Amino acid sequence: MGEFDLIRTFFTRPVRRAALGVGDDCALLAPAPGMQLAISSDMLVEGRHFFADVDPRLLGHKALAVNLSDLAACGARPLAFTLALSLPRADTAWVGAFAQGLLALADAHQCELIGGDTTQGPLNICITVFGEVPAGQALLRSGAQAGDDIYVSGSLGDARLALEALQGRLQLPADVLAATRQRLEAPSPRVALGLALRGIASSALDLSDGLLGDLGHILTQSGVGACIDTRLTSPLLAAAARLPLDQALVRKCTLAGGDDYELCFTAAPALRAQVAAAAQASATPVTRIGSVQAQSGLRLLGADGEELLARFASFDHFSA
Amino acid sequence: MGEFDLIRTFFTRPVRRAALGVGDDCALLAPAPGMQLAISSDMLVEGRHFFADVDPRLLGHKALAVNLSDLAACGARPLAFTLALSLPRADTAWVGAFAQGLLALADAHQCELIGGDTTQGPLNICITVFGEVPAGQALLRSGAQAGDDIYVSGSLGDARLALEALQGRLQLPADVLAATRQRLEAPSPRVALGLALRGIASSALDLSDGLLGDLGHILTQSGVGACIDTRLTSPLLAAAARLPLDQALVRKCTLAGGDDYELCFTAAPALRAQVAAAAQASATPVTRIGSVQAQSGLRLLGADGEELLARFASFDHFSA
Repeated sequence: MGEFDLIRTFFTRPVRRAALGVGDDCALLAPAPGMQLAISSDMLVEGRHFFADVDPRLLGHKALAVNLSDLAACGARPLAFTLALSLPRADTAWVGAFAQGLLALADAHQCELIGGDTTQGPLNICITVFGEVPAGQALLRSGAQAGDDIYVSGSLGDARLALEALQGRLQLPADVLAATRQRLEAPSPRVALGLALRGIASSALDLSDGLLGDLGHILTQSGVGACIDTRLTSPLLAAAARLPLDQALVRKCTLAGGDDYELCFTAAPALRAQVAAAAQASATPVTRIGSVQAQSGLRLLGADGEELLARFASFDHFSA
Repeated sequence: MGEFDLIRTFFTRPVRRAALGVGDDCALLAPAPGMQLAISSDMLVEGRHFFADVDPRLLGHKALAVNLSDLAACGARPLAFTLALSLPRADTAWVGAFAQGLLALADAHQCELIGGDTTQGPLNICITVFGEVPAGQALLRSGAQAGDDIYVSGSLGDARLALEALQGRLQLPADVLAATRQRLEAPSPRVALGLALRGIASSALDLSDGLLGDLGHILTQSGVGACIDTRLTSPLLAAAARLPLDQALVRKCTLAGGDDYELCFTAAPALRAQVAAAAQASATPVTRIGSVQAQSGLRLLGADGEELLARFASFDHFSA
């Protein structure tokens, strides 16, 4: 099957929201009046972001999910995406399953595939996603104020716990492995929460490289510091409540785990009721884990409220 | 040097045209009122689209050029792009040279780098480019009408001739190799011509896989056929006039060469003066090479005006 057949078979569908979709030199897209286009691009590489033998359906899901998570972090509503795919060979069963996982998530978010590229080469998936957000209302990393509360959505560390087990550093009961592996391989982007937090959150980002490192971007770009209470973050690793996990491992997973695809955001204490309402409206749990401080740097409180040294480096694709 | 340092050092520049550039979860972009956003994505893989030892400055140029060529084919004005880059290692000299070539072309077209991703893996470059075009004025593949003239810009086959020489199937004089290699490694996207052809061309696309295969997309999407006169296309391989090249090779290069990044477009015969004026205004030579016909299929006229069999397959990334 040639390149054009592959595109036609799996990736050409009727255009609904774009002015022009797959099949021309460019796709055409126009945000509604008063809207800005939010754009994000993520590249997934075999061996780095996923195992070679991963279920292609899950991989299709995850490739789009990590991009939708960036839209969520900006409070943008998904519109469309492009897919560039480098494949070792035209394996129709693999591509079919990949497309199925990808397009099921796309449909769930009414996010339309409008173009892209396929080529032969080492497996590489690059998605660029487009959302819309009213001009001036995007949630940015730069808006945190001293005194703001710091929140995270959902749970943290599940993906890292699964990774530790899959790489043989840890044994997990089958049901815990299945549940955490689901978080690693098929994360749910927090799009509804991001939309509900417009006008409430003072800053936001999505957690892909680990809480401490990612929160550091908010702090740097906002020119502030923060204090995080690990007594509030540790319970976020749900498996830890059931298993006799070492506290250092729990901290590694929750604070520097990576692949969480939860939102971390800040909001003024006066808006706690609004944050709770946004969480409820989007059916997404949120937990307050600390506060923004004028003094720069990131402070961690331990099990007895003592200050810990923040030695948990973020995951960096070139130095980890 | 870590991922974030690499981004900061080479790819973070002041935002000019976008509402928000590199450094947040998303970039923000808003086309002017009445404008549609034209979007295209291309992925370049080592060994498939370029040699491992290519000058990184030229590679940076070409990676953006092939995307700008897609905007040109739609008559869209470049605005911005995202870059996703997978690199075997953080080689700062290589990345610096790559960024220099990339950003020089970006600056020449006032096309702003607004975001992207870097990761470790086999060398892979994925650029998604954004242009703007007045709503309803984009040049599409689907507008060709029976009776229209068919044109190409610039020259054809240079890149393929260089490839034949670089792969050892042909010897070329040093000056011819240098000139054709420049076309292969640093193509000039025909952005000005694309803009000048708005309202004149009835259809257009850019030639990346070879004239016959690419023209086939116009014919299929417009529901028409065409006749191409090889007496008009053969002189487009400039080197052929100087060298005793085999006519079959000349035809292979001009008709199915690939990597030309010229525009192929159609226009009504009544608009020949306007086509000539657009060519002059954009300082881009154009050549009329045939005509659109109601009868489907692609006919080729040979050196004596006889009909040739069109056996020149397009370059297909999974079957070539």
